Amino acid sequence: MNKEYLTKLLNDVKSGELEIDNAIEKLKTLPFEDIDFCKVDHHRAIRQGVPEVIFCKGKAPQHTAKIFEKLITVNPIVLGTKADAVTFEEVKKLIPHAVYHSSAQIITVGDIDSIPKKGNIIVVSAGTADIPIADEAYIVSLALGNNTERVYDIGVAGIHRLFASLDKLCSANVLIVVAGMEGALPSVLGGLVDIPIIAVPTSVGYGANFNGLSALLTMLNSCASGITVVNIDNGFGAAYFASMINK
Amino acid sequence: MNKEYLTKLLNDVKSGELEIDNAIEKLKTLPFEDIDFCKVDHHRAIRQGVPEVIFCKGKAPQHTAKIFEKLITVNPIVLGTKADAVTFEEVKKLIPHAVYHSSAQIITVGDIDSIPKKGNIIVVSAGTADIPIADEAYIVSLALGNNTERVYDIGVAGIHRLFASLDKLCSANVLIVVAGMEGALPSVLGGLVDIPIIAVPTSVGYGANFNGLSALLTMLNSCASGITVVNIDNGFGAAYFASMINK
Amino acid sequence: MNKEYLTKLLNDVKSGELEIDNAIEKLKTLPFEDIDFCKVDHHRAIRQGVPEVIFCKGKAPQHTAKIFEKLITVNPIVLGTKADAVTFEEVKKLIPHAVYHSSAQIITVGDIDSIPKKGNIIVVSAGTADIPIADEAYIVSLALGNNTERVYDIGVAGIHRLFASLDKLCSANVLIVVAGMEGALPSVLGGLVDIPIIAVPTSVGYGANFNGLSALLTMLNSCASGITVVNIDNGFGAAYFASMINK
Amino acid sequence: MNKEYLTKLLNDVKSGELEIDNAIEKLKTLPFEDIDFCKVDHHRAIRQGVPEVIFCKGKAPQHTAKIFEKLITVNPIVLGTKADAVTFEEVKKLIPHAVYHSSAQIITVGDIDSIPKKGNIIVVSAGTADIPIADEAYIVSLALGNNTERVYDIGVAGIHRLFASLDKLCSANVLIVVAGMEGALPSVLGGLVDIPIIAVPTSVGYGANFNGLSALLTMLNSCASGITVVNIDNGFGAAYFASMINK
Amino acid sequence: MNKEYLTKLLNDVKSGELEIDNAIEKLKTLPFEDIDFCKVDHHRAIRQGVPEVIFCKGKAPQHTAKIFEKLITVNPIVLGTKADAVTFEEVKKLIPHAVYHSSAQIITVGDIDSIPKKGNIIVVSAGTADIPIADEAYIVSLALGNNTERVYDIGVAGIHRLFASLDKLCSANVLIVVAGMEGALPSVLGGLVDIPIIAVPTSVGYGANFNGLSALLTMLNSCASGITVVNIDNGFGAAYFASMINK
Amino acid sequence: MNKEYLTKLLNDVKSGELEIDNAIEKLKTLPFEDIDFCKVDHHRAIRQGVPEVIFCKGKAPQHTAKIFEKLITVNPIVLGTKADAVTFEEVKKLIPHAVYHSSAQIITVGDIDSIPKKGNIIVVSAGTADIPIADEAYIVSLALGNNTERVYDIGVAGIHRLFASLDKLCSANVLIVVAGMEGALPSVLGGLVDIPIIAVPTSVGYGANFNGLSALLTMLNSCASGITVVNIDNGFGAAYFASMINK
Amino acid sequence: MNKEYLTKLLNDVKSGELEIDNAIEKLKTLPFEDIDFCKVDHHRAIRQGVPEVIFCKGKAPQHTAKIFEKLITVNPIVLGTKADAVTFEEVKKLIPHAVYHSSAQIITVGDIDSIPKKGNIIVVSAGTADIPIADEAYIVSLALGNNTERVYDIGVAGIHRLFASLDKLCSANVLIVVAGMEGALPSVLGGLVDIPIIAVPTSVGYGANFNGLSALLTMLNSCASGITVVNIDNGFGAAYFASMINK
Amino acid sequence: MNKEYLTKLLNDVKSGELEIDNAIEKLKTLPFEDIDFCKVDHHRAIRQGVPEVIFCKGKAPQHTAKIFEKLITVNPIVLGTKADAVTFEEVKKLIPHAVYHSSAQIITVGDIDSIPKKGNIIVVSAGTADIPIADEAYIVSLALGNNTERVYDIGVAGIHRLFASLDKLCSANVLIVVAGMEGALPSVLGGLVDIPIIAVPTSVGYGANFNGLSALLTMLNSCASGITVVNIDNGFGAAYFASMINK
Repeated sequence: MNKEYLTKLLNDVKSGELEIDNAIEKLKTLPFEDIDFCKVDHHRAIRQGVPEVIFCKGKAPQHTAKIFEKLITVNPIVLGTKADAVTFEEVKKLIPHAVYHSSAQIITVGDIDSIPKKGNIIVVSAGTADIPIADEAYIVSLALGNNTERVYDIGVAGIHRLFASLDKLCSANVLIVVAGMEGALPSVLGGLVDIPIIAVPTSVGYGANFNGLSALLTMLNSCASGITVVNIDNGFGAAYFASMINK
Repeated sequence: MNKEYLTKLLNDVKSGELEIDNAIEKLKTLPFEDIDFCKVDHHRAIRQGVPEVIFCKGKAPQHTAKIFEKLITVNPIVLGTKADAVTFEEVKKLIPHAVYHSSAQIITVGDIDSIPKKGNIIVVSAGTADIPIADEAYIVSLALGNNTERVYDIGVAGIHRLFASLDKLCSANVLIVVAGMEGALPSVLGGLVDIPIIAVPTSVGYGANFNGLSALLTMLNSCASGITVVNIDNGFGAAYFASMINK
Repeated sequence: MNKEYLTKLLNDVKSGELEIDNAIEKLKTLPFEDIDFCKVDHHRAIRQGVPEVIFCKGKAPQHTAKIFEKLITVNPIVLGTKADAVTFEEVKKLIPHAVYHSSAQIITVGDIDSIPKKGNIIVVSAGTADIPIADEAYIVSLALGNNTERVYDIGVAGIHRLFASLDKLCSANVLIVVAGMEGALPSVLGGLVDIPIIAVPTSVGYGANFNGLSALLTMLNSCASGITVVNIDNGFGAAYFASMINK
Repeated sequence: MNKEYLTKLLNDVKSGELEIDNAIEKLKTLPFEDIDFCKVDHHRAIRQGVPEVIFCKGKAPQHTAKIFEKLITVNPIVLGTKADAVTFEEVKKLIPHAVYHSSAQIITVGDIDSIPKKGNIIVVSAGTADIPIADEAYIVSLALGNNTERVYDIGVAGIHRLFASLDKLCSANVLIVVAGMEGALPSVLGGLVDIPIIAVPTSVGYGANFNGLSALLTMLNSCASGITVVNIDNGFGAAYFASMINK
Repeated sequence: MNKEYLTKLLNDVKSGELEIDNAIEKLKTLPFEDIDFCKVDHHRAIRQGVPEVIFCKGKAPQHTAKIFEKLITVNPIVLGTKADAVTFEEVKKLIPHAVYHSSAQIITVGDIDSIPKKGNIIVVSAGTADIPIADEAYIVSLALGNNTERVYDIGVAGIHRLFASLDKLCSANVLIVVAGMEGALPSVLGGLVDIPIIAVPTSVGYGANFNGLSALLTMLNSCASGITVVNIDNGFGAAYFASMINK
Repeated sequence: MNKEYLTKLLNDVKSGELEIDNAIEKLKTLPFEDIDFCKVDHHRAIRQGVPEVIFCKGKAPQHTAKIFEKLITVNPIVLGTKADAVTFEEVKKLIPHAVYHSSAQIITVGDIDSIPKKGNIIVVSAGTADIPIADEAYIVSLALGNNTERVYDIGVAGIHRLFASLDKLCSANVLIVVAGMEGALPSVLGGLVDIPIIAVPTSVGYGANFNGLSALLTMLNSCASGITVVNIDNGFGAAYFASMINK
Repeated sequence: MNKEYLTKLLNDVKSGELEIDNAIEKLKTLPFEDIDFCKVDHHRAIRQGVPEVIFCKGKAPQHTAKIFEKLITVNPIVLGTKADAVTFEEVKKLIPHAVYHSSAQIITVGDIDSIPKKGNIIVVSAGTADIPIADEAYIVSLALGNNTERVYDIGVAGIHRLFASLDKLCSANVLIVVAGMEGALPSVLGGLVDIPIIAVPTSVGYGANFNGLSALLTMLNSCASGITVVNIDNGFGAAYFASMINK
Repeated sequence: MNKEYLTKLLNDVKSGELEIDNAIEKLKTLPFEDIDFCKVDHHRAIRQGVPEVIFCKGKAPQHTAKIFEKLITVNPIVLGTKADAVTFEEVKKLIPHAVYHSSAQIITVGDIDSIPKKGNIIVVSAGTADIPIADEAYIVSLALGNNTERVYDIGVAGIHRLFASLDKLCSANVLIVVAGMEGALPSVLGGLVDIPIIAVPTSVGYGANFNGLSALLTMLNSCASGITVVNIDNGFGAAYFASMINK
């Protein structure tokens, strides 16, 4: 898929510098490093020009720490999402300057503030219980090089607060809207603004909320235009997508 | 449970007018009439002082027609809900002055306009596709003797219309709010008004709407206070409950 | 939306006391206070004339305690629902006279008994395991200024007890009926009384109960009239709605 | 499994009348007849001493008719359940004296009245829309040789009717209780009588009924003792089980 | 509903021994005792002639202990089902001779062995992990006065063991068949024996088992006749129903 | 929300040209037209600068036709999505130059080709059965003024075709990826390209597809970054969102 | 991926016969033909050495017919699965010698009998209603060159028939076991034989069968070893996989 | 079912060495040992020629340990799957040379390396969090006597790694493909290779993953041929089935 790489390879074949059998091998194999429990993909990080992000949930803390150690050798900024305090302790042992953002459950290595920022993304949340997911989106968005602001706690139960924030919201290129329970906030905003909205359902709620299913279905069925949805509690995915649009 | 009835019965026992065995029989049995396919409950109609309502869905049209014929001998107003055109044809054969409200899928026998009206119920609907259920609630509400108004098509996708109607909505004793798709309208209204809201999810929508499940869950999980919910597409139930409150 | 406010504002514009640009700002912004983790809405509390209620679940105990501290400066009565013992400990540190109702999982600050009471709400529960949710409804109902009574443990498995309580139940303006497992109690009561019933499904049960889904579906599908439903375990919501009707 | 059969077989082996290889064959094979599209099991019919019952749904009408024709050569009474009118037309072509019970969707061949009856089963239904399934149970129960009565339309929404029928219900050995919508009737009866109840949920209802799921979950979660449940709309299964108990 | 009671009452009215107002009161009220957290129903226990059974799950251990204390004053045998070790400790404090059957999670007070036994119930289980629920059914069945045997670990994965047990199974009046995972055992037995089978799905399994849903659906859809189903993990309910049949 | 409007209004108040009471009325009401069955929102169309789009499903064909007639008086381009042939016939009666795109189930009035186009959106589909939804997205995207191309039938079962199209796909600003059955295509593309992907699950499939649930869950859970999801079969929503990004 | 192809290409580059730019193009593109509505993949058919199979459901009949016409130019045997009679009529217009297997809902073009057969696959079905899916598996299996037999109607409700067939079943290399309703047959067979079983749940059943979900979950949760599962009603997939094993 | 056994038995009957009554007993009973809490099935182990495998989840650790102790007397290799550390501690007390594979959650007794290996199975996993289930499959596959390799962490989000491994994968007789989250890997591999694929969905993920439902549905709906599915997290089942094919 890389034209220069293929051109050089074929030139080497033509010139005889490269054996045909070796060329076939190279055509089949893309470079990646082996470590014993997983194959870290530097290639992808470089190709996409973004900090490397590790999804920590379900990984053993020591393994996560080793992946961090490996990645910081080739990447100035590394993030770990859905990271609990135990994982952070392990990472800190290997990388003392790692930072833990406890609300967002994110570990960062490297200086996020130093990354040049562009555009304007606003992260909106409906209730105080949605803040952890909103903060996940906020920190990832910053780390991906976006000017990012937070407008929290403007759920539809107190709609006048939402109106008080409208002017500010209208200045964004993209809105990330985080809401649990009935998840109606993206629909309401979608009826008021003409900006792409990425809706993030959260698992906040109880009873017939069914761990976020309620908010997810609400957002998917929104009768307002200009809304797309990511997985329940997926603040990272929303920020990544928003960053693509913002740039 | 009826004190006068029991007092008379016991007096008759005391005076010897009533045999004890007969008294026992009477104590065990409440009056109701048998017809061959179902037992119509005049007693309930009288006790509750409301028009009799027949749920037509799943009943054979001829049976429904016969129930109508039976009931109009003792009740000036009889309604049939969830009635299709075929059922209406059968009813019309036996009761030529029956009327069919096709949008609401309601058959009425008797003059609803003549019923004295009290209070103020407003039926609100989110989209044009929700109108059949909203109309079901509207006609039932009138038939139960409530002043009833309609404010339709003020869904959250065009929230400025909702605001234009707020003054009117604030005049109601009860709001019946009918919405399909994401069903966010009751939440939004619940954040704006201090009036009891009966939320009616509809099966309007497609895809991850799952026949109204989406709107139902949204309404049950509403973070606004002052909202209760009835079954999907249950315009009748909402109107009946609203009528109880309104009076 | 507030006529007096708007009248004054426009008069001030007319008289020149208020600059047009400032007037535009005011028209767009409604007053609310910022605290660093959430925006507490005094405005709503005042407008609705009710004690402020904090939903504690999913909030960090310290944050909840700070919200309590903030709110009691402007509101004589503050409640926290779905509050665990840990949260109460934090609240108690800041507000020593806070009270914990452990069955109901409610923290109260201020004297609920001193609130003048009106009307008559009865909270009915089906089984002893439903008592926590019934108690949540009971305490909230009192705090909202309603005469409130409890009739507990009259589930359909022992229907004669229910009959023994019927006279009392018939004296209520509204019934809050709390039931888990099969959740049939509201249906049975709805066939016996002519009083609005707010049905509260609970997550009590096991197996095919699916955390309250069973009771929820039963209540939504009730063939008795005069029943509406709130979320699973939502004693607060039922009491709030009942209070609206009772007044 | 059949002791006489095995004894004879082994005696024949001992006496030399039966070759060992043939004996092995016989030990492995139980008698059944082949017809080209299915294997009809006379053996089972005879062993269980009951009329043969064909489940017609999902079978081609002509095939069903041929199975009927085959079975009546060895069985005086044959039933077809969940049979539509088209299937009946095909059966009638081959067996002119076949009878169609349209409400119950059952085809019968042979005289059910002539079967000697024992015991006492009562089929109870909650609403008129549940009658088809109740009738399926009723006819199957008769065909299996049980005295069977019907008490219909005594749903919980009109609980006084239920009480009026209690004496009669108390005379049964088994109750088959058929109910759709919220399906609360078995729970209520289970709290009143000390008789085994077989609960049959029906798919009658709409909205959050989810084709009978609501009634099914209600019945499975009943807090009353003495209730078991069969599949949604399975009137046949309930009657078969009731018949086992009744005898 | 009690003829002697009513006859005496009416005779007393006739003779003037009972005032009519008092008679009305009596007709409305059935006797039951109040304790402060729940209403224990001695009446039911006596009417049904069975040991009292307390469902312990979801009740506070101290409350459960007090209910035990109360009930043993009027009932020689009291059982507590779904009881954990903590609850047992509380009960033991008040009733030192209480016994804990840890596999079955049942507390018993009183001598089950001394109860006269009738008939023959066999409890069958598919796998070793199903034993707790099977044991719950076993102990309840004994306590209700049934001769009861256990045939465990004969799941369909080793169907030859099942065949080895067939003769014994055929001697039962009722089979209680307990199975988790795919729950196929009742279907297989239903094809082999002509005895009523009460199927008990368990929550044993993982993955697409969905906490017992898999076994529940299998049992409800069984194509074998003579099977009914109780709730997931409801060993008590199966034993209670089996006992009704056995007697 | 409209600064010029507010400025003029307040100036008019200041100058005395506008009575304060009239000003209050104007501040509360936004302009919209009433037609008897629904309120068409010209305002929104104008504000958002896009063709008006009518969601036809669930609307009566005659009503839809009248909405079309109304809208074309103020909007050069009007679309109707999810429109069946019957609806088109009604629209054609009133607007003879209406065009029906049968694969996409879209009615258009006005010349889509004449709209100036910008940017580059590519609509990708996995299988031939997904084409109707892909075509819905395609036509809506064109109507909203986007250069739009189609790359169809490159599902993961024949992944070499996908690779053959990669160069073309890489030229897009946004990809709309339409897939039913297992819905894996967006995940695969998300691993290959660095372009925002809007994933559209379709209801194509059978069995455990559950009307699109399978594809929906796949897309929501994608481990590739840069993917968001719209409702099942919501080609319109995907195109609308893509258009926002593309511009 | 094709070594010969790559070797030749690189040799051509080396020899100068192929320009490097052209080589790059070829490396990126695999051959496939365009037809206007879909891209037929001859390449796959040839590579996998199997008859081409068209999934007809959800495709327009005329399109299906054209795909048939296209494919028979390069493939001696073409099958269409899930094909209804209308589709067959369209295919027959273009290909008069096409054959319709109505039970299996399969269209075949070309002589399946002429294909050389290997190994031994047996298709087992539980009930007569499962035959269509079993026949789909049977015909596909033959078309893929496998000796294939059918053993139908040996469901667990009549387990002695199953035992009568055991010897035959034991001769297979692979069993395809098709079952609806409770779907227990694969589990039972898995406990009896040591042969790979491919379980095919069908949508046959009603009520809590939920369109095949019941059988699907049963099969996935089987406690017998040696069972894998395909989609509900996916006879084709089972035959394809079985064919891979058989060879 | 065992011909030699039956032949000998019948010969003994013929010769008079065996009484007919004893022969009948033997024909009914297959040998198995009783231990007090479960019946261990040596017979099956021997007949199927495989190491005995104990499913440890849901069994009390001491019981599991005793089953191990029992089985190692007759079987050189015994495995325990889904075994936690506590269970291993108990097993180790009785069998000091037991080994715990913590990633795979497997206890082994006996030397797996000494088992002769055949064929070639490759276990593929999509992400690092899927490794425990992949390792379960890997160790079971080895224990069943298969040459087994691992290719881990080649999920579709980094599809170039997958291509780098293709040559190796093509050398397998069977692929076991383990994937959580969206579970797309089997579909992608199924489009690339002509080898039977056994897909293992895992419960890895969060939100709308619903504990593995997402991956399960994806795999069942795969549009690629040659894929079958086992239960969520069922690494054992996949390895057992793969072993059957491999041999």
